[in-house]
Amino acid sequence: MSVKVGKSKSHKIFFLSCDECGQEIEVSMPEFIIGILPKMLDLKSENLERSFKNGNIKFYSGQGVEGLQFRKDVGHIESGTMICFGNKIEIVRGFPKIRRTLLLNPSLVNHFKTEVAVEEKMNGYNVRLALISQKIKAFTRGGYICPYTTKKAPEILDMEDFFNDNPELVICGEMVGTENPYVTHHYREIGKLGFRIFDLRYKTTNEPLNIKEKYQLLDSYNLPSVKSYGIIPIEEAVERIFDIIQVMGQEDREGVVIKDPEMELEPVKYTTSRAHLGEIEYAFNYPFDFGRSFFFSRVIREGFQAFELDESEEEIRKRAHLLGESILFPMVNTIKHVSGDNSAFEDIVIHVENNTDAEEFARHLRDLGVVAIVQSFDDGKAVIRRIHQSTTDRISNYLRGGLY
Amino acid sequence: MSVKVGKSKSHKIFFLSCDECGQEIEVSMPEFIIGILPKMLDLKSENLERSFKNGNIKFYSGQGVEGLQFRKDVGHIESGTMICFGNKIEIVRGFPKIRRTLLLNPSLVNHFKTEVAVEEKMNGYNVRLALISQKIKAFTRGGYICPYTTKKAPEILDMEDFFNDNPELVICGEMVGTENPYVTHHYREIGKLGFRIFDLRYKTTNEPLNIKEKYQLLDSYNLPSVKSYGIIPIEEAVERIFDIIQVMGQEDREGVVIKDPEMELEPVKYTTSRAHLGEIEYAFNYPFDFGRSFFFSRVIREGFQAFELDESEEEIRKRAHLLGESILFPMVNTIKHVSGDNSAFEDIVIHVENNTDAEEFARHLRDLGVVAIVQSFDDGKAVIRRIHQSTTDRISNYLRGGLY
Repeated sequence: MSVKVGKSKSHKIFFLSCDECGQEIEVSMPEFIIGILPKMLDLKSENLERSFKNGNIKFYSGQGVEGLQFRKDVGHIESGTMICFGNKIEIVRGFPKIRRTLLLNPSLVNHFKTEVAVEEKMNGYNVRLALISQKIKAFTRGGYICPYTTKKAPEILDMEDFFNDNPELVICGEMVGTENPYVTHHYREIGKLGFRIFDLRYKTTNEPLNIKEKYQLLDSYNLPSVKSYGIIPIEEAVERIFDIIQVMGQEDREGVVIKDPEMELEPVKYTTSRAHLGEIEYAFNYPFDFGRSFFFSRVIREGFQAFELDESEEEIRKRAHLLGESILFPMVNTIKHVSGDNSAFEDIVIHVENNTDAEEFARHLRDLGVVAIVQSFDDGKAVIRRIHQSTTDRISNYLRGGLY
Repeated sequence: MSVKVGKSKSHKIFFLSCDECGQEIEVSMPEFIIGILPKMLDLKSENLERSFKNGNIKFYSGQGVEGLQFRKDVGHIESGTMICFGNKIEIVRGFPKIRRTLLLNPSLVNHFKTEVAVEEKMNGYNVRLALISQKIKAFTRGGYICPYTTKKAPEILDMEDFFNDNPELVICGEMVGTENPYVTHHYREIGKLGFRIFDLRYKTTNEPLNIKEKYQLLDSYNLPSVKSYGIIPIEEAVERIFDIIQVMGQEDREGVVIKDPEMELEPVKYTTSRAHLGEIEYAFNYPFDFGRSFFFSRVIREGFQAFELDESEEEIRKRAHLLGESILFPMVNTIKHVSGDNSAFEDIVIHVENNTDAEEFARHLRDLGVVAIVQSFDDGKAVIRRIHQSTTDRISNYLRGGLY
């Protein structure tokens, strides 16, 4: 069945044409959602109808793709899923949420079977690369097509042969490096911008290849994966992972994702203290934008890690001091900065061909609800200024004598 | 107009009798709330009706008092207000929320006139003492009559003459000391249990006496006030209050309330770093019960205080270390404690005459939504165990390998 999207006087309408006889029928958006989509997704039509009314499923148009974007989970269909219209309907499922463990022991033994695959969890942003109408598009976690990533990913990753042979697969990976527009982090092996793959999944069903199949396929197309620590017997896993985590912490790396080698069980993540504190530090640069939501769970992780490592009073004290510093220093710096009549902002550097591309990316950020402007463009280098409005407004108010 | 409360088949009913002719009429609860109460409180009847339906106004019965309890602000009527029925209707208004300033400068100059009265803010629990049907009752902040405080307050405070002469006034103060059931804190001048008065207000209107009238009246009845730092010219206030706050911090005291001597403007509070950290430490003993809600605003206070005091990097570092310790040590201790198959609890010591009184107080706590049992009673000393269920359950779950 192919779908084209048109517009009637008041509503979006779909022209569905039969693949066999070519006959075209016209259905309205509600008819499509209630009558056709439930069968495609194996969901109840009430469920889809309610989600559409609540705004949890939205019509999306951007980067040459029209479709339906899932803003929240609907039944078994993940948030971030996109139903793309075109010559045929293509479904790109959202990347599944990876649950976290606060303790390695006994979680790993409880959760997994005889072996676990351990892979690095990198600090960047989650991207799904998939063919939509024969073109590679880059989907962010939330199901938006990012113009910058869609342009950059094919420049740093040769995916042509892979997608020619495997059009039904999605490349799931992390965009990392110091010059990316979402999460910047320095990796000595990456530099400015890089992409590392952690999963290959079937577009429509979200079913992952198992670990062995994944590495075989990535190797044969010369595509880069995240660092693998191999397959580890379950009885050695806790000790081995703590060794890995210790080195990772020293190297300012984020942590690991622990997987069932068959990919039949859900993966689990575990992260370094350094990563927790780094995120708290970032959040308290912009306390009224991120402080409240970032803080609590990361502090809880620190508590359980200190407990599981059976740290001495002196070790806990050292961890506590680093925690306190990661909260207070950035906050006081930002108050000082705003007191100089500045706003609280961060500048993002991206490399684009022209000012139009920079403006397009800033618009994309604004679509996501971020206050962003192109601060400068010079010789391929664009500076996008992201303004943290709540932090700016609230600190300014208190500095003027406003009450809390 | 006097009111008695009876019960018809399905609803509470009121018997209102005219003070002049003695005629008694019967009105239902809804009729009372929609028809009579709006005039008494100068509120719109729709407003009261909605609040009653939402459960923001509830019927209250306890400690020999029946009435209507305001669980939330309704128009200008404060949360914690109680409309008491009896031989006559007596209204005890809720204690008004005191706003906080994060910076003394320029808040004080902006907010106040030529002078401010500075008084100690003590770390205990807010109590209003008022005559209801000629008996002294102790109202908690939320508008509950506390059986323990109602019993104890007259033992430690001779209010008889005061209330004989001033039945229309409410004594607003702090119950403090190491043996109180809500907030225990050691004050060398208090010991186990004490009461210190900060406001005298008219029962029905909530209008406060000004500072001078208040001290005159308290002195003449020999009633103890919180410590006063006197009336300070506004231009000296910031410097003087920082001096006070510094000493208070060293003495583990909470902070100050800054008032307009005429009590025409709203008071403002400002607290010590020691108090912020003490509360964070308490909260992270029971992280899943209090951690999230306690943390953020107290950390923000630390940031603004460090900024206003223009602290050096070393001073901020020291503050940060204490902050980190106040989070991590209690949390790790509680995880260790729960890992020994214990629940996370705190034991409250109160002095009561018999086990029945102890049970009555535990029941009162349970009415407030607290999980509490009488752990022991011996020779007038009752130990009430307050169990922090979320902390116990969630830590136990993670220790058994549950995912976050």
